[in-house]
Amino acid sequence: MAQKPSIPKGTRDFNAAEVAKRSYIMETIKEQFQIFGFQPIETPSFENSETLMGKYGDEGDRLIFKILNSGEYLKKISDEDYNAKSEVKITPKISEKALRYDLTVPFARYVVQHQNDIEFPFKRYQIQPVWRADRPQKGRFREFFQCDADVVGSKSLFQEVEFVQLYDAVFSALKLEGVTIKINNRKILSGIADVIGAQDKLIDFTVALDKLDKIGEEKVKEEMRSKGISEDGITKLQPLFTLKGDFGNQIESLKSILSASEIGLKGIEELEFINTAISNLKLKTAILQLDVTLARGLNYYTGAIFEVSAPEGVKMGSIGGGGRYDDLTGIFGLKEMSGVGISFGLDRIYLVLEELNLFPDTITESTKVLFINFGDNEAMYSLGAVTKLRAEGIKAELFPDAAISGKQKKKQMNYANRRNIPYVVLVGDQELNSEVFTLKNMESGEQKTVDLATLTSFLK
Amino acid sequence: MAQKPSIPKGTRDFNAAEVAKRSYIMETIKEQFQIFGFQPIETPSFENSETLMGKYGDEGDRLIFKILNSGEYLKKISDEDYNAKSEVKITPKISEKALRYDLTVPFARYVVQHQNDIEFPFKRYQIQPVWRADRPQKGRFREFFQCDADVVGSKSLFQEVEFVQLYDAVFSALKLEGVTIKINNRKILSGIADVIGAQDKLIDFTVALDKLDKIGEEKVKEEMRSKGISEDGITKLQPLFTLKGDFGNQIESLKSILSASEIGLKGIEELEFINTAISNLKLKTAILQLDVTLARGLNYYTGAIFEVSAPEGVKMGSIGGGGRYDDLTGIFGLKEMSGVGISFGLDRIYLVLEELNLFPDTITESTKVLFINFGDNEAMYSLGAVTKLRAEGIKAELFPDAAISGKQKKKQMNYANRRNIPYVVLVGDQELNSEVFTLKNMESGEQKTVDLATLTSFLK
Repeated sequence: MAQKPSIPKGTRDFNAAEVAKRSYIMETIKEQFQIFGFQPIETPSFENSETLMGKYGDEGDRLIFKILNSGEYLKKISDEDYNAKSEVKITPKISEKALRYDLTVPFARYVVQHQNDIEFPFKRYQIQPVWRADRPQKGRFREFFQCDADVVGSKSLFQEVEFVQLYDAVFSALKLEGVTIKINNRKILSGIADVIGAQDKLIDFTVALDKLDKIGEEKVKEEMRSKGISEDGITKLQPLFTLKGDFGNQIESLKSILSASEIGLKGIEELEFINTAISNLKLKTAILQLDVTLARGLNYYTGAIFEVSAPEGVKMGSIGGGGRYDDLTGIFGLKEMSGVGISFGLDRIYLVLEELNLFPDTITESTKVLFINFGDNEAMYSLGAVTKLRAEGIKAELFPDAAISGKQKKKQMNYANRRNIPYVVLVGDQELNSEVFTLKNMESGEQKTVDLATLTSFLK
Repeated sequence: MAQKPSIPKGTRDFNAAEVAKRSYIMETIKEQFQIFGFQPIETPSFENSETLMGKYGDEGDRLIFKILNSGEYLKKISDEDYNAKSEVKITPKISEKALRYDLTVPFARYVVQHQNDIEFPFKRYQIQPVWRADRPQKGRFREFFQCDADVVGSKSLFQEVEFVQLYDAVFSALKLEGVTIKINNRKILSGIADVIGAQDKLIDFTVALDKLDKIGEEKVKEEMRSKGISEDGITKLQPLFTLKGDFGNQIESLKSILSASEIGLKGIEELEFINTAISNLKLKTAILQLDVTLARGLNYYTGAIFEVSAPEGVKMGSIGGGGRYDDLTGIFGLKEMSGVGISFGLDRIYLVLEELNLFPDTITESTKVLFINFGDNEAMYSLGAVTKLRAEGIKAELFPDAAISGKQKKKQMNYANRRNIPYVVLVGDQELNSEVFTLKNMESGEQKTVDLATLTSFLK
């Protein structure tokens, strides 16, 4: 009954090198999260269905992985419901738990459930996998890690400033220099909608405007007209088409474009605060850029909106994003809890670092030295040395099986080669009797015979 | 529609201190795994159902969490099957994926699937959560981490020796001194069964014998008789009741007890090899002990069997276990792949370290210094200093909201206290104008005014 083994589509196995590279990214992010004062939490992989359902829209509900109840789960269904043979009726009866779809809703649930044990403002980070029954495609998986940092319980704009700094700190630590942190504000988008005179046309407007560089002003306007945006609105917002210059200049232009919108002006004020602070504090390697077309998460963001793009020349969607939401925990009954948070796109950051060859060589270094095994006596002697090397923190191994023939010795040498182990130690009768070790550099082929102390200090 | 938030039974939220302590254990284990030459892999949280089902017995199949298919999943069921309303018929039709039940079967699947990319012997470690629909109870959860290290592709007993060393290295690194590594061998158990004359009475025999210390020899024999073990068998194995002394002495007794069993003598030979090696190499803090009643995983272990108990005086089940299995990958079509592996019980190790107060204080240390916020200008000046401290790797925070009133200032001080932040920095007009900072030790109450360089070097 041998089965050809495989894994579900949209999921992945990770080998040692991949685990090491992913850990490197996650550890770097984690270190900066901690330096910025964020505290880790972890939540269960599955939540009660009612915690998740209805929080991500109909599409989200559909993409949530549901867990089948255990035991005689069909008994709970009335004959009437059962005979209808309808998923809508049956699913809630046979499934009471679901896999985490993101880290935000579990975080909101956590905050409400543990509110009496939490000091607010609560700065938390969370790095855990999430699951989505999405159609798998290049770069989109059914299981993937999210890396989130959020602060809840404060409306201070200093949080937004710090999140810009945090993005800069993480990407600088990853040596990924020149990322663009795009920022916008929901209130500016509301201001634009005010000027258009139609809130429901806002997305059409920003989507069209976003294509300016690609298709040119005339085509953009055509698209806007085809979506039913009034000529008057397009004229009034004409200056947005030529929004140029640095952050400060753009802010000045926006002030006149949105002068009639109170909420728009409030958005400008917020952006200006953040930009001034960042100009004073300076970023290490990232660039902060105003982007009025940035409209991600429009349904829940209420203030700042962030998105990070890879350095110029790297083709990749956003590698991070976030924003401020004013009512994270309301769905669970805790009102007035403003929050702001950002997220890092682990898989995409991985691809970018790979493309730019930015992973340090050291992170995939595994075993430093392999002791070739020529028989039980030699192996026993070798294991004594291996034990001492390990006690010094040196990654050392003994090949477990004895090489009787030359072919078997060759096999052990090949094993070291294929595993990229840089040194082997050869112990025969002579070495055993003189209590020494012959160390061979696998790259240069150079050999030398040394005692244990020399071996240890050399490998250390 | 506020819901009272909760999590599914048998699952857990972890707060910052808990995450830190769990990470400390996992990182310590991981470090030793790597020093011993093990490579990390990661597998998906869910596997195709056919990969998992039938691998853990009927009870296991029942305890596997099954994931409901997406979309119109009822359509796949014929009316005949549907009308039977039977879980046995319906489940395979509506669920094709299941959550990982342990790390061993996914590892076997991984080895077979990637056999052409793997260098054998393959030493892998894996630290990931598993899920079981078990009845939750104290210390038993529906989601928990397993920490496994295995070697496949070698029958060498040096592996067993190294696993004893690995247990010793990990528990020594955790400062958990005096754990007992109990060892037995499946072949010795087979030898005992040979002597009893009935393989199927073996478990009854070992279970009864294991109670010797608690209930005494007579009661043990009574139990054996009640289970149908022959008087002749009990008499022949009488010497097991008085198996005393160190490992070597016990081995000598076993040699005579099992002298008639070829397989039993083979088991003794293997144990003797391991004991001799460990006696030569010496353990740091653990004790290696022969335990002929150790019979865990009897269905799949074929050679050595390991179990680790907490130091004397700590009431806790085993905190680790493992053994050799001769056909890990056969179920997936790859024959002749002997393996041996061990596992660490994270949750129980956590409880033991907690009970013995062995977690280092440093691991739950979070933010080092909080800058009190007296207003935007002071905050802006403070954030400049915070930015510089962070660049030096110092965990620093600015309280995001300005304290206008004395009450608000007190709130910020309380916030620092409750979060165990050891230092706060106070910046008012004076500090701002003289470019200095007033540093307050939250424990002693002591204050001093310093410049940024002094502040940095002090906190570092």
